[in-house]
Amino acid sequence: MHVDLNSDLGESFGNYTIGNDQNVIPLVSGVNIACGMHAGDPLVMRKTVARAHKAAVGIGAHPGYPDLQGFGRRNMDLSPDEIYAFVLYQLGALGGFCAAENVKMNHVKAHGQLYNHCAVDRASADALAQAVKDYDSDLVLVGLAGSQMIAAGKAAGIRTASEFFADRNYTDEGTLVPRKQPNAMVEDKDFAAERVCQAVETGKIQSATGKTIQVQADTICVHGDSPQALDFTRLIRQKLHAHHIDIQPL
Amino acid sequence: MHVDLNSDLGESFGNYTIGNDQNVIPLVSGVNIACGMHAGDPLVMRKTVARAHKAAVGIGAHPGYPDLQGFGRRNMDLSPDEIYAFVLYQLGALGGFCAAENVKMNHVKAHGQLYNHCAVDRASADALAQAVKDYDSDLVLVGLAGSQMIAAGKAAGIRTASEFFADRNYTDEGTLVPRKQPNAMVEDKDFAAERVCQAVETGKIQSATGKTIQVQADTICVHGDSPQALDFTRLIRQKLHAHHIDIQPL
Amino acid sequence: MHVDLNSDLGESFGNYTIGNDQNVIPLVSGVNIACGMHAGDPLVMRKTVARAHKAAVGIGAHPGYPDLQGFGRRNMDLSPDEIYAFVLYQLGALGGFCAAENVKMNHVKAHGQLYNHCAVDRASADALAQAVKDYDSDLVLVGLAGSQMIAAGKAAGIRTASEFFADRNYTDEGTLVPRKQPNAMVEDKDFAAERVCQAVETGKIQSATGKTIQVQADTICVHGDSPQALDFTRLIRQKLHAHHIDIQPL
Amino acid sequence: MHVDLNSDLGESFGNYTIGNDQNVIPLVSGVNIACGMHAGDPLVMRKTVARAHKAAVGIGAHPGYPDLQGFGRRNMDLSPDEIYAFVLYQLGALGGFCAAENVKMNHVKAHGQLYNHCAVDRASADALAQAVKDYDSDLVLVGLAGSQMIAAGKAAGIRTASEFFADRNYTDEGTLVPRKQPNAMVEDKDFAAERVCQAVETGKIQSATGKTIQVQADTICVHGDSPQALDFTRLIRQKLHAHHIDIQPL
Repeated sequence: MHVDLNSDLGESFGNYTIGNDQNVIPLVSGVNIACGMHAGDPLVMRKTVARAHKAAVGIGAHPGYPDLQGFGRRNMDLSPDEIYAFVLYQLGALGGFCAAENVKMNHVKAHGQLYNHCAVDRASADALAQAVKDYDSDLVLVGLAGSQMIAAGKAAGIRTASEFFADRNYTDEGTLVPRKQPNAMVEDKDFAAERVCQAVETGKIQSATGKTIQVQADTICVHGDSPQALDFTRLIRQKLHAHHIDIQPL
Repeated sequence: MHVDLNSDLGESFGNYTIGNDQNVIPLVSGVNIACGMHAGDPLVMRKTVARAHKAAVGIGAHPGYPDLQGFGRRNMDLSPDEIYAFVLYQLGALGGFCAAENVKMNHVKAHGQLYNHCAVDRASADALAQAVKDYDSDLVLVGLAGSQMIAAGKAAGIRTASEFFADRNYTDEGTLVPRKQPNAMVEDKDFAAERVCQAVETGKIQSATGKTIQVQADTICVHGDSPQALDFTRLIRQKLHAHHIDIQPL
Repeated sequence: MHVDLNSDLGESFGNYTIGNDQNVIPLVSGVNIACGMHAGDPLVMRKTVARAHKAAVGIGAHPGYPDLQGFGRRNMDLSPDEIYAFVLYQLGALGGFCAAENVKMNHVKAHGQLYNHCAVDRASADALAQAVKDYDSDLVLVGLAGSQMIAAGKAAGIRTASEFFADRNYTDEGTLVPRKQPNAMVEDKDFAAERVCQAVETGKIQSATGKTIQVQADTICVHGDSPQALDFTRLIRQKLHAHHIDIQPL
Repeated sequence: MHVDLNSDLGESFGNYTIGNDQNVIPLVSGVNIACGMHAGDPLVMRKTVARAHKAAVGIGAHPGYPDLQGFGRRNMDLSPDEIYAFVLYQLGALGGFCAAENVKMNHVKAHGQLYNHCAVDRASADALAQAVKDYDSDLVLVGLAGSQMIAAGKAAGIRTASEFFADRNYTDEGTLVPRKQPNAMVEDKDFAAERVCQAVETGKIQSATGKTIQVQADTICVHGDSPQALDFTRLIRQKLHAHHIDIQPL
């Protein structure tokens, strides 16, 4: 049994520092590196690729909408053709640093609203998957479990990895309980970490209403931007170890 | 005998169209494609790479300073480390479209003030050459004949191509007569085109003062942004043909 | 009887030139000047304000979404608070050039997708109207006739001007026939110019289905980006003169 | 006797937070607010103007080079015409928020490399001073004591304020000891704070070599980006109080 732990990194920009990259890298098996559109810049990308390479974690591209001020979290009405071109640009840009570092890019995970949009819009998801395939057909496309991204990746004939959210409640249909609802988050961290193991081992968890649902958990997204987030990540690691589930790159 | 004719392309951006890419491509053997920092955007880059591929001309990256408003023509005080990272980013970004188009990138030519700066500043030129080498050691670095860029490329162990300017007068030292001086330009187009052939065949031309100087002319920069520029390019082609000098990619 | 003719100007950026500002200014009574977010830059704004001042046309701000690559034509999901702040920023920026030129700003017309969005979304329209009022309560807010923008401006207690589109067909409800439909445009230019006069004189035109509908026509948007557009603008001017309708700023 | 304490604020951008604005504002009499080119965005500017207004400190514009990635700290070769237009744009943009907040802008202090460049280049300083004057001739131009900025402001007929650096050593000519030199900084904080009082009271301090030199100290730049910086600011305040020197806006 094994699972990947992934985290979004390299989101600093110029004089602006964000995140806690140094402390997160040792806790994960894969990183998603911002590519200069919603966050990150060439200097940050270079440093982050080098750090990730040194730590031998899986290096992923984390393309986003071209909206630094909005951090890629606002919806922008990009056509599938625009999504294709903007994603390909960002994969290539990160690939430049991978080439210089002599390391292979491992996976791609869309950022923020691009991720959310491609989760539900098939034409956009197809554009994303096609960009990934056209850049390097060996790449793994990471997407929300059960989403259009996973379907698009499969249809394009590339490998996919389904992402499970450790601290979010799920609906009976297997989608995330929207953040606006009071029970969006799993508050009990211990339970949440235990649930991760259950998802990996059995592919089943209980929804917010208590119904047993299917979930695919190839990779778990963790955060390092607060001491609490780091603690939760460490807790997940402990539980996974206790369950004899290996943490390894996609 | 052979020489390359190169032109800067793909400088449109969003709703803004610039240049005359369609008409220039058939006249050259190599194109330098803007990479989204001083000009160009992902959609333009995609289209330009596809056009260049179809025309079977050499595809080059044309990285510039991150200054769209100034079109990369203003000096910006980037450190060698910054030049390295910003060039690598741009090579990678264009490389994304080459990968998707299944065509190999051929060469790199810096744009505007990055070109001018690296022509005279060795540390910057070394950073440029190292970025090219680290991205793909098969790439040809195009630089001003006799400049620090050529020296840096040779020192880095990559192939270089010396660029000759058809319409510019040269000093006794083999550098360009500065644009501010009245005799910066060669006004007689017929003479200028003939001089190109002479430079390719003999490696020697006469300076603005009439002294015979050495010049290396591996590639000639031509423009397509006006009917006059296109006519001059056609004239150079005619002269080259008359002299039995082949026009071929680097 | 009088009406304003307005046109969008100052949309060039850096090395990129767009539009035909010199030729349009003499044909209109008001201009909407891009403010550096979707188009325009400080140098262009300075020149455009000076030109408009010299021609004694009404000077308006033309704020848009912060998306130069998309020219402000893509939807971006800005909250009302973000709309307020981004519009206020742009009004102020243009106001800097008005202050230096010692001329008063006259009106505000949102650009592209910001215009379209505020036409139908009341909370966004309220944010736009409040930004205009808070910047200078003497300004006129230009909006689509019958839209939420006009309603928001009236509710905020500022003056409004309803815009009529000379070359677009209208639905029975007084909204524009969507561009996707085959009859979106009025093809007969002569009829279209005559209809402008009718709208100004009577406040009534016939919808695409032939029904008589109410329209408010305080200002007519004209374009100068093609010879055809300039000709159509001249035709509208001729018809207005023939009908003894004065062309004057808001 | 009185002096102004100024600090650079509002340098956050989108998701990126920088500085310690909340804690600095109570300690100063004037703030310099970034205007969206080297730092700051419309939302940050709005909030910062409101905070400064509430605290009744002098509100100043802090225009910089259009280089967010370089935080305005890299040299960029803007012509005087470009400096004029880019500064005017930024003054206007901040002025938009002042108008909405119904508060008057008080002063202008250039940021980073624009400040450094205008300190020594008279044509650039003239462009800066002219932009300030053309925007609002009541504004105070803050500049390095004895610099071209102060001379340009006086020549333009606007009020100027000379800035003294509490923690920097001065040369015999009254300029700052360059940061590269080992004795650039005054290490003894107590001595530095005492020296501030001396500069305000007598207009004389000792240079790094011990020579008595003239200095103008209308305003002192303080920082809040670290606990040490805040402590040093508090120390300066204590010393000023002990010397019966009032802290008041320009």
